[in-house]
Amino acid sequence: MAYEHRIVREVEFYHTDMAGIMHFSNFYRFMEAAEHAFFRSLGLSIHTVDPEPLGWPRVHADCDFSYPLRFEDSVEIQLLVREKREKSLVYSFIFRKVSGEPQREVARGTLAVACVKRDSATGKMKAVPIPPAIADKIEAAPPEAFGG
Amino acid sequence: MAYEHRIVREVEFYHTDMAGIMHFSNFYRFMEAAEHAFFRSLGLSIHTVDPEPLGWPRVHADCDFSYPLRFEDSVEIQLLVREKREKSLVYSFIFRKVSGEPQREVARGTLAVACVKRDSATGKMKAVPIPPAIADKIEAAPPEAFGG
Amino acid sequence: MAYEHRIVREVEFYHTDMAGIMHFSNFYRFMEAAEHAFFRSLGLSIHTVDPEPLGWPRVHADCDFSYPLRFEDSVEIQLLVREKREKSLVYSFIFRKVSGEPQREVARGTLAVACVKRDSATGKMKAVPIPPAIADKIEAAPPEAFGG
Amino acid sequence: MAYEHRIVREVEFYHTDMAGIMHFSNFYRFMEAAEHAFFRSLGLSIHTVDPEPLGWPRVHADCDFSYPLRFEDSVEIQLLVREKREKSLVYSFIFRKVSGEPQREVARGTLAVACVKRDSATGKMKAVPIPPAIADKIEAAPPEAFGG
Repeated sequence: MAYEHRIVREVEFYHTDMAGIMHFSNFYRFMEAAEHAFFRSLGLSIHTVDPEPLGWPRVHADCDFSYPLRFEDSVEIQLLVREKREKSLVYSFIFRKVSGEPQREVARGTLAVACVKRDSATGKMKAVPIPPAIADKIEAAPPEAFGG
Repeated sequence: MAYEHRIVREVEFYHTDMAGIMHFSNFYRFMEAAEHAFFRSLGLSIHTVDPEPLGWPRVHADCDFSYPLRFEDSVEIQLLVREKREKSLVYSFIFRKVSGEPQREVARGTLAVACVKRDSATGKMKAVPIPPAIADKIEAAPPEAFGG
Repeated sequence: MAYEHRIVREVEFYHTDMAGIMHFSNFYRFMEAAEHAFFRSLGLSIHTVDPEPLGWPRVHADCDFSYPLRFEDSVEIQLLVREKREKSLVYSFIFRKVSGEPQREVARGTLAVACVKRDSATGKMKAVPIPPAIADKIEAAPPEAFGG
Repeated sequence: MAYEHRIVREVEFYHTDMAGIMHFSNFYRFMEAAEHAFFRSLGLSIHTVDPEPLGWPRVHADCDFSYPLRFEDSVEIQLLVREKREKSLVYSFIFRKVSGEPQREVARGTLAVACVKRDSATGKMKAVPIPPAIADKIEAAPPEAFGG
């Protein structure tokens, strides 16, 4: 049972904008990258088609920005499982600049995703219980894990 | 005094992802596009350097996703000023699919931005009161404007 | 029979980079947007699944950059069909800044795309002749159309 | 004197499009990432402001695409200095999928960049000789380095 994963990404030139900092939309992309790496760390993939396609649409995402990131900064994205529900997962993310000085927390975000599959009758996607093969590997992080 | 603005954007191929829908990070980009168009509609620009550079860093952004957008969909992004504070603005956004059927609200988001300029003493960006030339043109939307 | 199409796009903040100009990767995205709009102008879609899925993978793309584009510039992308082959199309693109001063050509690009469908025997994508429903609507532009 | 550098990047979900493959615009972004990493490998940065700002605008970029890249693929981008001129550099790039099977070359690209600085008289960017501190560290790759 896992509740945490960390990845590091470099801020590339194409992540920056004319304000000279990483465009804020990339924080959401990095959250998702951490989510997918978390799945891989459990021997899973976010993209599964066997025995049947399973999707994880984003239901909500937010982010609070404290400090900017700049070109060539290294940023650690720490994923923490905030909530494990029957048909959805809520992740928290802590962004820390881990290159240069000062090294510090620069942002915090949240991503809520639903587990869905295609309903064979209607052809529409509908929320389904997270399959045990996935759910059994994931647990909510203890409160102290979020402490700064 | 204005509190609202609407833009329409097309979902381009490069906005989509392998799930066949618009990648969620683009909702944040479209919020920002609406914010900038709102400023232009008031005869302002988000990017001002005269008499001195003024910046609008993002402090918080969130979005709730109800329905996906797909390639070639037209989406209207309605900006509403939720809060006007001395040194910051909070916007709400309502996304509506306005092409094909069904036409409907697909997402709602929020963007909070601070008004900053460079402190001549320290060289660092710091929050400052929104200049009257901008503040006098903007007001908070009435509660009923947010009603669905 | 058509050989030309024009679209206009705004340079949004998220298209810029820390050099203060539109990131060069977006020129390729705008070429593709013009290609797709060209298809729509003919009553077609680049994304067709009926009677069977047809794909248009990019085989080659290039661009020569003469002048930068900046935030809030309007850019016209003119598509010209350079070559119509049995199983592929080659487009040329002329980018012109059409807002502010000076208005001028800022870049020229090329996009070569193949027409493919899934081979029912092998399951792999393979080049196929462009279906008449599409090919009959497209012709190569005359040489003088490319003249500056 | 160096003429080569290699980086590896993961294809993230946000790099993909609705065709299920990495959007072609990202090949150009990865070329640039390799260029910047090449500079860092020489103790340089593409972003220098001391003793005065030096820029490297893109003059030309092209890419030939042989095979698609997919989500979670690892791709090696090999940079080779194709030409070293007085005021510009031309790089070649070879993209190889280095995860899963088959591992193979998937694309080849070119990037030509000019060395510019702001002219103090006119305020405009103009091409200048590459400073010795940079030029002395870079040489053109031998022809055999490009061999497949």
